[in-house]
Amino acid sequence: MDLHILNYRLRVTSINTAGLSRYTHALIKLVFLSNQTRCKFFSLTETPENYTVVLDEEGFKELPESEHLQVESDIWLPLNVLCDRNASSSSDTVGVTKIATSVIIPLAEQHVSVFMLSTYQTDYILVREKDLPVVIHTLEQEFAIYREVGGETFRVYSEDTDVEEDRKEAVKMKVHPVLSPDNRFSVMSLDPATLPTIATILIDVLFYSNCSAEVENYASLGLDYIKFFSFSLIDGYISIVMDTETQRRFPRELLFTSSSGELWRMVRIGGQPLGFDECGIVAQISQRLAEANISAYYISTFSFDHALVPEEDISYVIRMLEKPLTEL
Amino acid sequence: MDLHILNYRLRVTSINTAGLSRYTHALIKLVFLSNQTRCKFFSLTETPENYTVVLDEEGFKELPESEHLQVESDIWLPLNVLCDRNASSSSDTVGVTKIATSVIIPLAEQHVSVFMLSTYQTDYILVREKDLPVVIHTLEQEFAIYREVGGETFRVYSEDTDVEEDRKEAVKMKVHPVLSPDNRFSVMSLDPATLPTIATILIDVLFYSNCSAEVENYASLGLDYIKFFSFSLIDGYISIVMDTETQRRFPRELLFTSSSGELWRMVRIGGQPLGFDECGIVAQISQRLAEANISAYYISTFSFDHALVPEEDISYVIRMLEKPLTEL
Repeated sequence: MDLHILNYRLRVTSINTAGLSRYTHALIKLVFLSNQTRCKFFSLTETPENYTVVLDEEGFKELPESEHLQVESDIWLPLNVLCDRNASSSSDTVGVTKIATSVIIPLAEQHVSVFMLSTYQTDYILVREKDLPVVIHTLEQEFAIYREVGGETFRVYSEDTDVEEDRKEAVKMKVHPVLSPDNRFSVMSLDPATLPTIATILIDVLFYSNCSAEVENYASLGLDYIKFFSFSLIDGYISIVMDTETQRRFPRELLFTSSSGELWRMVRIGGQPLGFDECGIVAQISQRLAEANISAYYISTFSFDHALVPEEDISYVIRMLEKPLTEL
Repeated sequence: MDLHILNYRLRVTSINTAGLSRYTHALIKLVFLSNQTRCKFFSLTETPENYTVVLDEEGFKELPESEHLQVESDIWLPLNVLCDRNASSSSDTVGVTKIATSVIIPLAEQHVSVFMLSTYQTDYILVREKDLPVVIHTLEQEFAIYREVGGETFRVYSEDTDVEEDRKEAVKMKVHPVLSPDNRFSVMSLDPATLPTIATILIDVLFYSNCSAEVENYASLGLDYIKFFSFSLIDGYISIVMDTETQRRFPRELLFTSSSGELWRMVRIGGQPLGFDECGIVAQISQRLAEANISAYYISTFSFDHALVPEEDISYVIRMLEKPLTEL
């Protein structure tokens, strides 16, 4: 299989809810006015805690500094596995499950932190730029690794043979509490040409939802909902993850999802914010999902990780994740 | 004729260009998300100096305080003349010209400052709430005056007979330099239901035009253009004043203008910011336009006044306004 190190140097940032209005100007530009910015990798995920914004350096320039913006100190690079459809590795699962044993677990064993971003189109595995030698060394047995530089793609090889010697201790796995809200999610896309058509609804959902009747609406349903909405615009492709309540606000005909039209339930990982240095969290979850052959989208945010699993599998997944852990 | 004192208590504010991004959140809500706000009177005019925002108290609540926001200290009330079409007063002119002799000049003679806001639909004459007794007394000879309170409309009469005694000195008219840029303007409207369709273009024009190629584009045309764009959403009606360069960015079929499709040229009044206390500026301009029977839209902003006159009359108007003034 091929693994590409994409040509984006990403920043992982968080805007607190109180400061969102300060960032509306920049975010609207990044979402809707792509002709006004050179940003090519943009992802915004709203959670009850904050807005996680992952974006390339061109996009990052648009965000004014303020006490409302937290920026993770490292540069992150997105990896992308290009699957050979004929050599389907083991299962018909999608998302993080598919790359659990080939990418996620080997990286965790080398103590490499990953930040996952699943979209409608693909799964991005973000690793710190400084971890790249270890990443290449770890993954080159399984993958042909390519790096995009200045529009061209080069095969890359591990340069540092010292890495091989550096055997790591087994990762100490911490049990993180999981939470599963009642929302049911769709993972959708739309033609970028139709984005202006839904602009006002999307703006309302993204930037004004806290003052809308929506939150009260959830409460009135007596459901244990959480706010979770993810929008990404990466290399011209749009991906939107939203719950069924929010989906009702959009015209039905413009957004499309996979032909099966599946709905997904969420498992949020972490009772306390996870931080960026603990490695193995994605591995912990994805390994078990892979063993059970359950597809999952996986979206990391500044505070928590989120796995989306098929609606019918949610009870099984929760039971499974609450079992004691074995070391990797 | 009838004159209505509309049921809005307005604030006249200015956002400086450097602070616009701080106000994008609030302004987008006021322009596009009317279901999220109780604001019913909103007007935003971009000039090279700043953004003048006139809005009712509900809308004013949406604007966060900051060093970028200036607020005129008084409450202003909008007056609106309802013309009896059968008793067409003297001419077929539109805009401020039509109400020059009946409203604008009598108020100036009583030293009442007015702030004008012409829209596609009508002309609002804003007066300070504290001047209302003088306004009613001055205008009730010519008009039946009605005031809207709590959804009902009452005829109002002058209460204070002292006003009559208070003969004012003649207004000392100051000659203000006029400037006429090369832009040609349209005064347009659109169906509020189609506002979402042009949202991204309108957002781009309103909030991101300074970073677009537009400014350079004007310069490259070798023309003496100024930035002027006015949007209002009043009682559900939209009015947009924009130049022909900007108009090209919008789909042609959604915006409509009067059947004659006239283009307008601008006269900006004032070399230095005018302030709010000098009265008689609108009178000075509108009296001469009335004498020459030339229609004009008139838009006051925080710093300057702007009259829009038919393209073919611009040379005549400029010559006329450069002549020495007589006292009113």
